[in-house]
Amino acid sequence: MRKFLGIDIGGTNTKAVLIDENLEIISFGVGDTPASGGPQAEIAILSEMFDFLKIPVKDVDAVGIGIPGPVDNNGIVHNPPNLKHWGDVDIGKYFAEFFKYPRERIAVDNDVNFAAMSEYHIGNGKRANPMIMLTLGTGVGGSVLIDGLPLRGRDGFAGELGHIVIEPNGPRCGCGRKGCAEALISHHGIVKTAWKILRRDKGSIMWNMLEGDFRRMSPELIEKAANIGDPAANKILDITANYLGTLLADLINIFNPERIVIGGGISRWGDALLEPARKIAKRQALKNLAKSVKIVRAKFYQRAGAMGAAIYVKNNL
Amino acid sequence: MRKFLGIDIGGTNTKAVLIDENLEIISFGVGDTPASGGPQAEIAILSEMFDFLKIPVKDVDAVGIGIPGPVDNNGIVHNPPNLKHWGDVDIGKYFAEFFKYPRERIAVDNDVNFAAMSEYHIGNGKRANPMIMLTLGTGVGGSVLIDGLPLRGRDGFAGELGHIVIEPNGPRCGCGRKGCAEALISHHGIVKTAWKILRRDKGSIMWNMLEGDFRRMSPELIEKAANIGDPAANKILDITANYLGTLLADLINIFNPERIVIGGGISRWGDALLEPARKIAKRQALKNLAKSVKIVRAKFYQRAGAMGAAIYVKNNL
Repeated sequence: MRKFLGIDIGGTNTKAVLIDENLEIISFGVGDTPASGGPQAEIAILSEMFDFLKIPVKDVDAVGIGIPGPVDNNGIVHNPPNLKHWGDVDIGKYFAEFFKYPRERIAVDNDVNFAAMSEYHIGNGKRANPMIMLTLGTGVGGSVLIDGLPLRGRDGFAGELGHIVIEPNGPRCGCGRKGCAEALISHHGIVKTAWKILRRDKGSIMWNMLEGDFRRMSPELIEKAANIGDPAANKILDITANYLGTLLADLINIFNPERIVIGGGISRWGDALLEPARKIAKRQALKNLAKSVKIVRAKFYQRAGAMGAAIYVKNNL
Repeated sequence: MRKFLGIDIGGTNTKAVLIDENLEIISFGVGDTPASGGPQAEIAILSEMFDFLKIPVKDVDAVGIGIPGPVDNNGIVHNPPNLKHWGDVDIGKYFAEFFKYPRERIAVDNDVNFAAMSEYHIGNGKRANPMIMLTLGTGVGGSVLIDGLPLRGRDGFAGELGHIVIEPNGPRCGCGRKGCAEALISHHGIVKTAWKILRRDKGSIMWNMLEGDFRRMSPELIEKAANIGDPAANKILDITANYLGTLLADLINIFNPERIVIGGGISRWGDALLEPARKIAKRQALKNLAKSVKIVRAKFYQRAGAMGAAIYVKNNL
């Protein structure tokens, strides 16, 4: 039976999954992404992982490699912000040379595109057309699947849905603009909103939970406080839901999607964030378009990228 | 030689163009869109036009009909705001029955999608992929061409680029949201900005030009005043260019387009508006994506919709 290998290189971990043509998992492993040494160090780590997991690279029918950053239409990675010393690199070529594997059986893409692929085929995307994937975590990532394939644009960089401006007077985003979705509904953005609210509300229970140290602030802590009924925590949740709802309404008006799948760590807040955001989105979006969209949570968190990479190459290489 | 008929039903005028397979215009005509009577009255007007222009409907190989409003994937028109008493209607069926013409040789679509088709094939779109068309006029319309065909979404309603929020504290949009692009950079939106600036600047030369009557305000008047060096007029221009630049940067980040073509009456301001907007867009958008996009004015104004309808059916029916 044919076998497909999916690799997801994250800022912290590297995951690999081997699947058969029925999408059954043969083996799965996680290792540390090397903090330095660039692509060569990464390839060395992969080699160790494959040995350990007994993944026979040469017998694999195709390989997908997901990267946390921009990947162009030729599979060239462009300076991924969380992979130090990578710069612009043809990681597929490195892989092919090291493992003596044919380059044309390797696909390299953005990790969100591959995560979207998982949701589309075996997750909560349910082959919706168009399907939009949003990942809320350290950053805000996006992928738009039309007929099940990522919208790529001229160079391969389309789908930067985290860099739509939601609040032009909002905090500065890493990209240079003010008030991008990423500056507001990423982990960091939510912590910033929390600071704005908390510094004016010395009575919030969150100060006790933080033991006076704001650096302990996190979405999880806000959720706990909101569950106890803390007004400040609920206000932070409202503000964040409003930002997310605005982004969702923009996306509905632009793409007329059948489904929007929301993944990433922040989405684990679940219905506390998602339910009000969904209501705001449906109220704000044009009626014809709001009617037909479903906004759902992602099914996968840990394995989505690697599985999606394997599924993609199974279907397209 | 084969012949194709394109019809553009606007809120005020109805245009028809007959072309041959080399895209040469055989005849072109303009009539009034009937103010009442719905689709039946429109069909009667078309019948008169075809008689007058000697357009032999039965000998035409395909017909495209553009509508100023939402059209679904089955060609059903949904309550176009500027066509009174239309509601939801299968205009293609009316046309087919009246002219005894095969329904399957008729395509009905949104007028901006057809205008985009003109720019793509014979205008300033130059077969760019993706190509985005923005029309700035009474409203703000959009169309996104991928591989030369409009992004349609689940139902056919995608591309509502005028309903992306640019300024959440901005004026109320007709769609119910606040600060949509359409509420800011349409004719009406610009006049609103002008009022905000002018009422605080009694010394502006625009008051003389208006002869004290603000209802005479128009983009053309602002342009004239800006050319003379009026600070208030230049401020209005700056604010509008900033809104437009923000929208363009959003679109660049979302679609990684090769070209954005800007049409509609407002774009005739030309470089006074477009040049600063272009600079803002290129500065705000992600570097990888800003690099490869060209932002240009549309080539066509009057005939774009009807020509695009004819070109579309020539290529796709």
